Amino acid sequence: MILKDLIREIPDFPVKGISFKDITTLLKDNLAIHSVIEELKNNFADKGITKVVGIEARGFIIGGALANELNAGFVPVRKKGKLPGKTISESYDLEYGTDSIEMHQDGLSKGDIVLIHDDLLATGGTAHAVLRMLNKAGISKIYFCFICDLEFIQSADKDIIYDYNPYILVKYSD
Amino acid sequence: MILKDLIREIPDFPVKGISFKDITTLLKDNLAIHSVIEELKNNFADKGITKVVGIEARGFIIGGALANELNAGFVPVRKKGKLPGKTISESYDLEYGTDSIEMHQDGLSKGDIVLIHDDLLATGGTAHAVLRMLNKAGISKIYFCFICDLEFIQSADKDIIYDYNPYILVKYSD
Repeated sequence: MILKDLIREIPDFPVKGISFKDITTLLKDNLAIHSVIEELKNNFADKGITKVVGIEARGFIIGGALANELNAGFVPVRKKGKLPGKTISESYDLEYGTDSIEMHQDGLSKGDIVLIHDDLLATGGTAHAVLRMLNKAGISKIYFCFICDLEFIQSADKDIIYDYNPYILVKYSD
Repeated sequence: MILKDLIREIPDFPVKGISFKDITTLLKDNLAIHSVIEELKNNFADKGITKVVGIEARGFIIGGALANELNAGFVPVRKKGKLPGKTISESYDLEYGTDSIEMHQDGLSKGDIVLIHDDLLATGGTAHAVLRMLNKAGISKIYFCFICDLEFIQSADKDIIYDYNPYILVKYSD
C-alpha cells in the first residue's frame, strides 16, 4: 500500500502558497489507517514504550491507537489552557510571536520510556518544545514517530529531532 | 477495574462551579485505556461499523483506536476552519452565542455504518449537531459511544441522543 497516494494535497491551505498534506483521506480508509498503526507498532514493539505522548489535535488519532497496541498509557500535549490539572509548559516561536503547549505535571513518571507522536513534522518547532518539556520532566528515553515529514523544510529545531532518529512513514522532498 | 476511580475530578474548571471530569488520569494508565477500548470494541464488534467519527479533540484519542479495532476508517469532526477540504457544517448553541463544527464532505459514503465517539456527553449539543450533519450526509445507520455521561444534565438535545441507545462506560448522577 502506497500511503502517500492516499494523502490529499490541498493548495493554499491554511494560507496562500502552502500545499497542505491532508491525512483525512488516509484515515478514512480502513486498510490504510490499520497499516499505519501496524507499521508504527511493529517498529516500536521491542522498545519497552510505557507512554505514548500525542500532540493535539491530529497526533491524538494515531497516538491513542499506538498506546493501545504497545500496551502503553497515553498522555496528551495540548494547547495552553486546555488541560485542567497542574501543568508544565513550553513556548515555541511562530512566524509572528510565540505559542505554548502544556502537559500535566503528573502525566509522566521518571522511569517512563516515551514515544512522542504527531501526524506531521514540518519546522520541528512543536516537537522540539515537547522534547524540552520531557527533559524538564526528567525523561531520558525518548523516541519520535510521525506520519509525514516535509523534508524540504530545514531548521535547527528539526536537526535536534533528527538526532533522535524519528520513524517517519511518508517523506515529501518538495 | 473501576474506571470511575481513575477519572480525576477538578473543581472550578473551566469555570467556577463546574467539577471537571479529567480522563487524562485514566488514559495514562495502560491497563485502563486498554480496558476502555476493549469494552467499546466488544460492544460494537457485531454492528458492521465501517467508519468511526471522532469529535475534536478528546474524541480523537479513543476514536482512532476504536476505528483500528473495528477495522473501520476514521473521520474527524473538527471546529470551524480546521479541515482543509470541502466541508459540511452544523451550528449549535452555547451558553452565549453559537459555535459550529465541520466534517469533510467526502468523509462518509451513503452506505456507511457509523459509530460516533466523544469522551463526554454533557448537554448533548455537540453530539446532536454531529447527528444532524450525518443526516445531511445521508447516513442512516448511526451508533454513539461515550466514556462519561453527566446524567444530571438534561436537555432536548440529549434526549435525542438517548433515543439512539448510546453505549456509556461511566455515569455521573451528580
